Amino acid sequence: MPENLKLNTFLQEFHSDCKHPECSFGFYGFAFGQSPFPVPEPVKRALIENADKGAYAGVPGIQELRETISKYNKRNFDIDVDPSRVYVGPGTKELIFNLLEILHGTVILPTPAWLGYLPQIRFLKKNYHMLHVAKNGKITPNDLEHLTLRLHDRQKILILNNPNNPTGLIYSRLELEEIADVCRKHDILVISDEIYALTTYDINKFVSMGKIYPEGTFVTNGLSKSHAAGGYRLGYVVFPQHATELKKQFKKILATEYTATSTPIQHAAIAGFSESREMDEYLEITRRIHEIMGWYTYEGLNRIDGVKTTKPESTFYLLADFNAYSDDFLANKITNSQKFSESLIQHPYHTALVGGDSLVLERTDFSARIAFIDYNGKKAMENYVECQPKTNSDKIEFVKNNAPKIVDGIAMIERYLKDLKKETNSKISHQKTTDGETVSIP
Amino acid sequence: MPENLKLNTFLQEFHSDCKHPECSFGFYGFAFGQSPFPVPEPVKRALIENADKGAYAGVPGIQELRETISKYNKRNFDIDVDPSRVYVGPGTKELIFNLLEILHGTVILPTPAWLGYLPQIRFLKKNYHMLHVAKNGKITPNDLEHLTLRLHDRQKILILNNPNNPTGLIYSRLELEEIADVCRKHDILVISDEIYALTTYDINKFVSMGKIYPEGTFVTNGLSKSHAAGGYRLGYVVFPQHATELKKQFKKILATEYTATSTPIQHAAIAGFSESREMDEYLEITRRIHEIMGWYTYEGLNRIDGVKTTKPESTFYLLADFNAYSDDFLANKITNSQKFSESLIQHPYHTALVGGDSLVLERTDFSARIAFIDYNGKKAMENYVECQPKTNSDKIEFVKNNAPKIVDGIAMIERYLKDLKKETNSKISHQKTTDGETVSIP
Repeated sequence: MPENLKLNTFLQEFHSDCKHPECSFGFYGFAFGQSPFPVPEPVKRALIENADKGAYAGVPGIQELRETISKYNKRNFDIDVDPSRVYVGPGTKELIFNLLEILHGTVILPTPAWLGYLPQIRFLKKNYHMLHVAKNGKITPNDLEHLTLRLHDRQKILILNNPNNPTGLIYSRLELEEIADVCRKHDILVISDEIYALTTYDINKFVSMGKIYPEGTFVTNGLSKSHAAGGYRLGYVVFPQHATELKKQFKKILATEYTATSTPIQHAAIAGFSESREMDEYLEITRRIHEIMGWYTYEGLNRIDGVKTTKPESTFYLLADFNAYSDDFLANKITNSQKFSESLIQHPYHTALVGGDSLVLERTDFSARIAFIDYNGKKAMENYVECQPKTNSDKIEFVKNNAPKIVDGIAMIERYLKDLKKETNSKISHQKTTDGETVSIP
Repeated sequence: MPENLKLNTFLQEFHSDCKHPECSFGFYGFAFGQSPFPVPEPVKRALIENADKGAYAGVPGIQELRETISKYNKRNFDIDVDPSRVYVGPGTKELIFNLLEILHGTVILPTPAWLGYLPQIRFLKKNYHMLHVAKNGKITPNDLEHLTLRLHDRQKILILNNPNNPTGLIYSRLELEEIADVCRKHDILVISDEIYALTTYDINKFVSMGKIYPEGTFVTNGLSKSHAAGGYRLGYVVFPQHATELKKQFKKILATEYTATSTPIQHAAIAGFSESREMDEYLEITRRIHEIMGWYTYEGLNRIDGVKTTKPESTFYLLADFNAYSDDFLANKITNSQKFSESLIQHPYHTALVGGDSLVLERTDFSARIAFIDYNGKKAMENYVECQPKTNSDKIEFVKNNAPKIVDGIAMIERYLKDLKKETNSKISHQKTTDGETVSIP
């Protein structure tokens, strides 16, 4: 099972079982990657208006939705997409799964990675290779080319997640162009998972791989993240230009596996992807709030001794590096990142994050994904509209008022790390005095 | 691609291209298997009320829905199902696909069969064997046992579709018990696709295989047929008792492939599967109308010289046997059932049905599935409520008023068969006079 789902279940179960009286203060959720905002009004309204649509939709999606998605791509990403290149599915996760089913070749998976890809790759028994990111948190064209030269399959499939979960980083136009050059040279198709595209704080900075490498990129996107409707289950894939044969195969698979995506939900998506003042405002406000929460979380974590994180430019995640504490973890028998995340859930910390093992990192890499979404999104939107924070102290005030759990959760992580160090030190001094006697770990 | 979807597409495309002036009378749709009724009001209302539910649901489905389905099974099928045995998915089609993914062994597919199973079995590269039904339109325990003894795999999977698409028949309790005995003896798991259960005209006659063989049956059902909400995409599977390990595997697959089913749609399903006067009435009225349409279609077709059909007891289908016309088909170069269905779509007949080739029958078996759903279901329900037809002549009147296309479509099939015979006869006499000269086929 993907680790995020497992962890969330575990956390809920654990918390409901925790009998400690102090537990009333709740837990701090930095683990689950779900937008905190309400479903946009136009999307909700469209679902309500189309609740009577009980008939099966066509396999690739309702024509009006495909046309809307085509315009959405033109408007937001400056890509000319014929509607016939658009296929709608019940979430991008399933569409990526279906793509991996029809595409031949070795999969190249950049790490750290979203928790969903690897179970799919393994389930489908595909050849795959990891490609670890460079110091700047992104893959480099050179590393990609070196890896490619070692692979035997003629065709390769690069899963590019841009904007990136877990780092919150985006690839620049130049970086994408250099990657595209390697892909053209070495027969690499790209599945570009751009589900976070419209959460990019400076939206002008986001560039779609579908623009740079249109002949070899499958772009996936949907309602789940920017439109805060993960529970609706609607995604789409834009096929590369001239992929007639693959589209035919894909259609066959969709028809064989699930007929079509929910018709009322497709109508709701038409509203979500259509141009409107209301949608523009929604996207703008939620972007600004994600940015503020990201900035605060980044500043707060980097202020903790020894902690370094990526600086998010999009999404609601960052990647935090706790490896400066490696010796302390090991001294306390926390030998891998899973044990780290489990120990952080224990009383009194009750703080959930996604450990490196669930991000396809080495088990001994004490990095973790931090999602900054544990707040009431509806209330935050209202307060943001009422009074937009401008200065840094406005922003701090905004976070304290709207997302106290983020504030306290960061403090809890700091406390955990301090306790950890204290424990190590007391052990060392204890060991010095007792000279090798067995010490019980609390 | 499943043949029903292909045919429907073909038909729509064909019709929009037909330039003949007489074509204004439209076409007769006996092919596509979709309920003509509107989505039940309680289901629609629940979707409207839950349009704001943008959060991801848990993998196996919302707990309240699983509990509702458990009660639904108790109420309708007298089965005690713990909610933990219920898994919700985006349509039973996908759930059956997922089951076939995790279950080992040779698949036994009774024929004629619904058009959806074989593409799945083939796509998953599973071993499979057909099991042709006996004269009464159902598989027999003896035939099942004989086939089983020839199979090498220890475990077998029988796909039982009850009520049956395309025949409209149901298996009696005794028949199911005898089949279950063979299954127990020979390690056969059953996927019992009961999506039409609640369309059974005499609802007391329907028996679920989940009641008879609870330790080895996966029962699938959903909103698509009895609740006329195929476009909503919601199905469920009830696992056999004590299938703990399989449930775990299944959950893993669902999490890997698609996370969960649409949350607002799940809430709508709660209303659909809950007990209410409104739902009871809806199900009762639609059952009665299906029964009347089925009865009329059965009578109408069997009155045509040489045509024999099954007598539907459930669903909105029957299987019609046109093999008495085999010689005429062949004389007119209609060498298989696909050519038969294609020729019936041509001007002036424009009548669509699903030929035997799409029902996993021999290509030269001129049987076809007839769906009796080409009418305005909303209007028919209103008229039924206003004045319930009691006598046979009431019923004929009801069909003529509410489903003129069914009336005309049956007449069109008759005309087609007459023309076919005329063509054969003229050919024979022509051949007699011209003595072997080449004759052009119009």
